[in-house]
Order: sequence, then structure tokens, then C-alpha cells
Amino acid sequence: MQQAIRTVHVGVIGLGTVGGGTVRLIQKHRDSYIDAYGIDIEVTRGCALDADRAAELGLTGDAFTSDWRDITSDPDIDIVVELIGGEHPATEIFEDAFAHGKHVVSANKALLGKQVGTLAAHARAAGVQIRCEAACGGGIPIVNALEHALVGNKALTIAGIVNGTTNYILSRMDAEGLDFADVLADAQRLGYAEADPTADVDGFDAASKLAILSSIAFHTRVTTDDVYMQGIRNVSAIDIEQARELGMKVKLLAVGRNTPAGVDVRVHPTMIPADHQLAAVNGAMNAVYMVGDAVGETMFYGAGAGAFPTASAVVGDILELARPLCQGDDLAAESEPYAKVLPIRPIDNLSTRYYIRLALEDRAGALAPAISAFEQAGVSLSSVRDVRCGDNGKRSVVLLTNRAQEHDVTAACAQLAEQGGAVQVASLIRIEDMDAWTEGVEAN
Amino acid sequence: MQQAIRTVHVGVIGLGTVGGGTVRLIQKHRDSYIDAYGIDIEVTRGCALDADRAAELGLTGDAFTSDWRDITSDPDIDIVVELIGGEHPATEIFEDAFAHGKHVVSANKALLGKQVGTLAAHARAAGVQIRCEAACGGGIPIVNALEHALVGNKALTIAGIVNGTTNYILSRMDAEGLDFADVLADAQRLGYAEADPTADVDGFDAASKLAILSSIAFHTRVTTDDVYMQGIRNVSAIDIEQARELGMKVKLLAVGRNTPAGVDVRVHPTMIPADHQLAAVNGAMNAVYMVGDAVGETMFYGAGAGAFPTASAVVGDILELARPLCQGDDLAAESEPYAKVLPIRPIDNLSTRYYIRLALEDRAGALAPAISAFEQAGVSLSSVRDVRCGDNGKRSVVLLTNRAQEHDVTAACAQLAEQGGAVQVASLIRIEDMDAWTEGVEAN
Repeated sequence: MQQAIRTVHVGVIGLGTVGGGTVRLIQKHRDSYIDAYGIDIEVTRGCALDADRAAELGLTGDAFTSDWRDITSDPDIDIVVELIGGEHPATEIFEDAFAHGKHVVSANKALLGKQVGTLAAHARAAGVQIRCEAACGGGIPIVNALEHALVGNKALTIAGIVNGTTNYILSRMDAEGLDFADVLADAQRLGYAEADPTADVDGFDAASKLAILSSIAFHTRVTTDDVYMQGIRNVSAIDIEQARELGMKVKLLAVGRNTPAGVDVRVHPTMIPADHQLAAVNGAMNAVYMVGDAVGETMFYGAGAGAFPTASAVVGDILELARPLCQGDDLAAESEPYAKVLPIRPIDNLSTRYYIRLALEDRAGALAPAISAFEQAGVSLSSVRDVRCGDNGKRSVVLLTNRAQEHDVTAACAQLAEQGGAVQVASLIRIEDMDAWTEGVEAN
Repeated sequence: MQQAIRTVHVGVIGLGTVGGGTVRLIQKHRDSYIDAYGIDIEVTRGCALDADRAAELGLTGDAFTSDWRDITSDPDIDIVVELIGGEHPATEIFEDAFAHGKHVVSANKALLGKQVGTLAAHARAAGVQIRCEAACGGGIPIVNALEHALVGNKALTIAGIVNGTTNYILSRMDAEGLDFADVLADAQRLGYAEADPTADVDGFDAASKLAILSSIAFHTRVTTDDVYMQGIRNVSAIDIEQARELGMKVKLLAVGRNTPAGVDVRVHPTMIPADHQLAAVNGAMNAVYMVGDAVGETMFYGAGAGAFPTASAVVGDILELARPLCQGDDLAAESEPYAKVLPIRPIDNLSTRYYIRLALEDRAGALAPAISAFEQAGVSLSSVRDVRCGDNGKRSVVLLTNRAQEHDVTAACAQLAEQGGAVQVASLIRIEDMDAWTEGVEAN
């Protein structure tokens, strides 16, 4: 016996891949949401530039508009779903929705990475909520876990593979021995990378997601600009082959750590042990580690993009907002903004091991000045080895350091650059200190 | 500026490993829960047989009792945390807590695996809630994900490694080439296995967790008795070595699938591809796959047991219950019991590939009757090979089948048993059809 429930009306702005998946998923399961949860949601109106696209989704007549204001101002709509991405007019959509007392569900990591604190404060002032599960790792339910199931913990680390495009490229470089440019071109052809791949391959997308996740996990405010960022353009087939010989894999990791010296937030290629759980995350899949002082290491794995995986997260958020509304209850406003802002630890203060590949002239005495530059900067080397002659008559020499300070390594590299072209740093990849991720976990 | 919040009083029954972890975690983080979430929880009273144990946790005087009724009937207590395990007096603790209008948090998989439907109905009638995140996979937040973030999906599969003891034993058998009995003895010495290991090694513990997870994921009622169960006692070092040669690992999986022919729920040793994400879950760690029609494959990985990981789940549940109570709001009763009960698909109807190791006399003509038994039962073999002579003068022959029906395989094995001792089925391990886990996922 189902008690009477109210239908919650949803307006979807943006009917592209994720918007289309969202509309279709709600249409497919509307009856089962009523049966299983007593929640009735309906996509009352959709906004797109293209009426034909809306019609494909069954949104015609009053159910279609090409002006987003028709949705944010529609008195019948309870929840606005923003799926257009980018900063504008997404910001205006959020603000206008708040002004009309509507909750917002969004997958917009670019906007939220920069503005999550400000937008949350505005939502709170308007008495409404923002939900953004789909903005961090597509279908992986990590935001919900951080906000609910794991709240008993102090979060120590939130880290992982949160960009599918770069993971796809690195996985294929590894499996097929190809160079970055070749795989990127193929990935673009197959639709795994955008025509303009910058946001993915240079790390912006991962940095945005890390900013949001770190803000939630550590109860502070981290923005995309706080995140140190280095993409994968300089990772070569040689580096990946060298990593394999060292028992490691190269992965673009987003790492957030809540350290006594500040929040350490960075996105860059890393070498990690080949038998680590994250090393087995291949192709376009994503995986996020959350280390809590009580729970220890947890990992969440799944599809980080795609129409239906992302729609799963969007619809999960819609259903959570709708749950009390369908029963005629009110929904609390967005909770109190973060009380304190923790300092950001500069990348210069990172202490880890480094893989450094030098390109140098193939002549006696070429290597010594390079070794000297590192030693004089206080960087101790654990191994030095010739790996291959390059096509251009230059040698490649791989240095592995013992634990060193980033600023000392940077100083040594600058010193080499000043010496002129005889020795060049062809690539520098940090060897991630994953033991540090669990510092502060309670012993059982 | 923190608005005035009410302290929510918690009574903990059972101060063993998990109870102790729960009390200590709340003591450690009470102030930060107030700061970060506006939730104030206090362990007002603890119940144990041993006053000294309670005193170690700071529970003395009125804060200690050796009679659980002092907690279930205490008018000051809002939430009863049952951590004694087993069916009695845990059932009576639940019922008495309900009778006094108290919510219950529990890690008791043995009880909930058998009674979750009945207890949920009683909680609902009393206007209170049961929460049991800690009962399924220790610290892994899978229950919360199924009840919230993933509700947009139709759940197709819930499967994984949910018993740490057996995974520890199989991992060591694999790494060290040891036999079951040797590793079990060592695991008992090290505290990874109980003195009476039955609940773990024979699959009861995993079956209880699977019953709870399947009930939640598939919106039906599955009890431990519905789950087909086979433990790991018959897995030998030879089988694990054979698996390795076939590119597979042996894992004790709990598999729940929502199929058109009914709910397929089973716990047994399986062979899975060595490069599958679950094959890399080693030692006492747990991992649960949830496949939804929209999200596709997701995996949740973490510690399945231990004082603080399990306390993380218990305290997460307490905080969720306390969140509205601290604001002076009411908490809704347990939601409507499952509307429909799906049929259970008998194990006889399983269709998969099988690894069968025969022990047979080392003489000409010994093998043919065995091959014939399988062929006559309609089981097609994809390979037959001699693997090793046993110590007792018997041969070992490994058969791999093509896809076959469980009842045909069972019939062939029964036929061999009737033929007398010349050929014995030394082990039979199902090769899990993991492609079937994703049947019904939406194409992107």
C-alpha cells in the first residue's frame, strides 16, 4: 500500500551526452523509483539549443525550451539540473535557480572546482542545496561516501585516477609501447579525447575534481588554482618502459593529503608499484582512494564518464533531494560553509623520490657535471644508468634519487639548464610515496 | 557560530574488539563531529561482562552495566549499538530496544542475515530504524551506497570477497604454495582465524553478508538459508597451482545476481582471471562489486574487519541517525518492507565452466569411464590433462568443461561415485562467468 506522494518536478538544462542519459534513466525507472523508494520524479522540462535533440528524448511542446531562464524561473520546478559545463552561463543558472528557491544538481567540475565555497554559501542563504556527485569521478559514489558513510573518520588522504582520457592514453602507451602523440591522435579519432584535449591531458580536469574532493574530505576550501598541476605530454614510451623495468607503472594521479604542514594537493604523472591496486586501473576507468584514520585504506572504482554512469550519479542526487519532498517534508538548506581554511602546502615542500631522465651528448665527461649539479643541490642519487641512445646521437641516462626535497631537485634542474644544452632534463616523474598516504591511521 | 544542538546519547552493548574501537573513535572525534557536522554524540553507557574492560574505555560508575536491559530501557539513551554478535540475546536486545523506541545500530551479520526482514518490520512498527553498515564488509561503505548514491540504478549484480579470513588463507596458499590445513593452523596462531574457524572457512559468514546485501540491492528478501554455500576446505595447493597455469586465481566469492530466472545467490571457491581487479585483493582485505544498469561496474575496496575499520562503519551509522536528532528533528521510521519477494534460482540451474580434478588409479583404462560419465551427462570437455602423480600412487587429471549445467555436472560426479573408488572427484571449482555480471548494463 503506497501512501500518496507528491511528484517532484525536475528541469534539465543541457541535453548532451549526460543530459540525455539522465532523461532516459528517469524515464526508464520512474515507476520502480515509486515502488522501491516512494519517490516520484519527472523531467518536466528540458533546455537545449536544438529542439530536435529534445524531441528525441520525448521533450516537446511545453516540455522543451531553448532559454534556461524558462527552467530556473518555472514555479512548478523543484530541482534544476545543470549539465552544460563551463563557467558561464552555468554560474548564472546556479544563481538564478537559488533566487527562485530551487535546489541544483550539477556535474560541472570546472565551475565547482573554482567556486564551490561561494556557491555553497549562496545556496545556504537561499535555503536550498547543491549536489555534485557527478562532478567527481562520474558514476563512482565518492562524494556521498565522504559526506555520509565515512564521516566518523578524519580524512587523511583522497587520491586516485580521476581522468579517464589520460588513463586511457597511458594504458595504451604501456600496452602497445607507443608515444603520447600517436595515442592521443588515435584517442581523438575514437572519441576518448576531445579535439582540444588540453583540459584532460594538462591536468585541469583532474585538478578541478581534486579541489572539490579535498574541500569535502578535509572540511576546508581548496580551489583548482590551489592545485599543483602537470600533465602527461612529457611522458614518453621510454619512461613507461623504464618504469616497467623498475616494477612500476606511470599513472596521472590526483593526490590530496591532509598533512600537519598543510593540505598537499597536486596532479602530475607518478610512478607507482605495479602490484598496487591503482596500477590495475586501466583504460577509461577511474578509482579514488580515501584513507581515513579509522577505516584505513578504501578504494572506489568505476566508470568516470559516459552517458549512463554519469547519469547514475545525477539521478542519485535528484532522488536524495526528492526523497523528503515527495513525502511533503522540507529539505534542509546547504550545511554551514567550512569553518576554517587550512593552508596549502607548496609543491616545493614535497619530499619524495624522483625518476629523472637526462638527454646528453654521447661523449666522455658529459655526465659528471649533471651528477654534480644534483649532489651540490643536496639530492642524493640511488642509481644512475644508461638506457638507450636517442635517434639524435644523444644518450639517455636515468637517475633515481633517494628521498629528496622538490625545491632541491628543481634547483638542480635549473642549474643544468644554465649550463647550456649539453645535458637536458628530458623527463622528471615523481615516485609517489604511497606509504605516506596512511600516516595517521589508527593501529588495530 | 554554532547553533545550540542536543547531545544524542548512545549505549554500546558489547565492548570487545569492535565495541572498544567504537567507544574510542567517538571519544577521539567527539569535538570534531560537533565542529564539522553539528552532531554531538556521547557514549553514555556501555555493557560488558567484564567491568575492567569497560574501565579501560573510561566507562565506570553509572556508565557501566553488565545487564543489557539497563541500556535498552534507559530513558536517556537514543541509540542502542548491538555489538555482541550471534542470535541470542541479540534478538532480544533488538526487540527490547524497539519496545523502548530506540534506534539500533548493529554489526551482527549472523542475526541480520537470517532475520533482516522481520527485524526491519518490527523497527518500522515501533517507528525506529535499524542500520547495519558494519555487518557487510566492515569499513567498506557499501550499504550506504546501495541505499543512497546508487538508487538510480537497477542493481544487476552484487558480488565480491567479503570474508577476510578465507581470503587471507587463499592468498597465502597462493603466495607460498602451502596446503589449506597448514595455512589455517598458522592463521589461527596469528589471530587471522578463530579457534573454531567454521563460520569463516565453510562460508557461513560470507553467506550472511550476501543475504543482507542482496536483500538491499535487489529489493527482495534473501536469507542466509537461501544462499548456496561451499567453503574452501577442499581447495588444495595443486588446484591453486593449476589455476596459475591457466592464468587464474582461486577466490572465495559471494555472488548475488538479479536474473530473469530468479535471484542467484551463492558462496563458493571460484577461478577468476588473474588480471581481474578482484584477483588483486589479497590478505584480509575485502572488495565488493556492484553492477548497476546505468553505472555499470563499480567496486568498493577496504578492510573487512578490525577494530577501527568496523568502528568507522558503526560510527558512520550513529552519526547519520544522530544528525536530525541533534537539530531537534524527528527521524523517520524504517522504510516500508520489501514489497515483493523474488524467487531464488537453484544452484542446479547454474550454467558456467568447471575445473574438475580427478584422482584415479595409475593404470591403463582408468580415465575412459570418467570421461564417459561426463559426456553421457551432456557435459562437454574443453581439455583433459595429467598433472601430477599423487603420493598414494594415484594420478591427478584435470578436466576443464565448456559451459555446462550444474545439474549435469553433479549427475556425472554422482555417476563416478557409484562406479566405486577407481576415480574420485578430488576437487571441483566453478570458473566464474564474470561477463554475466554485466548482462543488462545500458550501452553508452
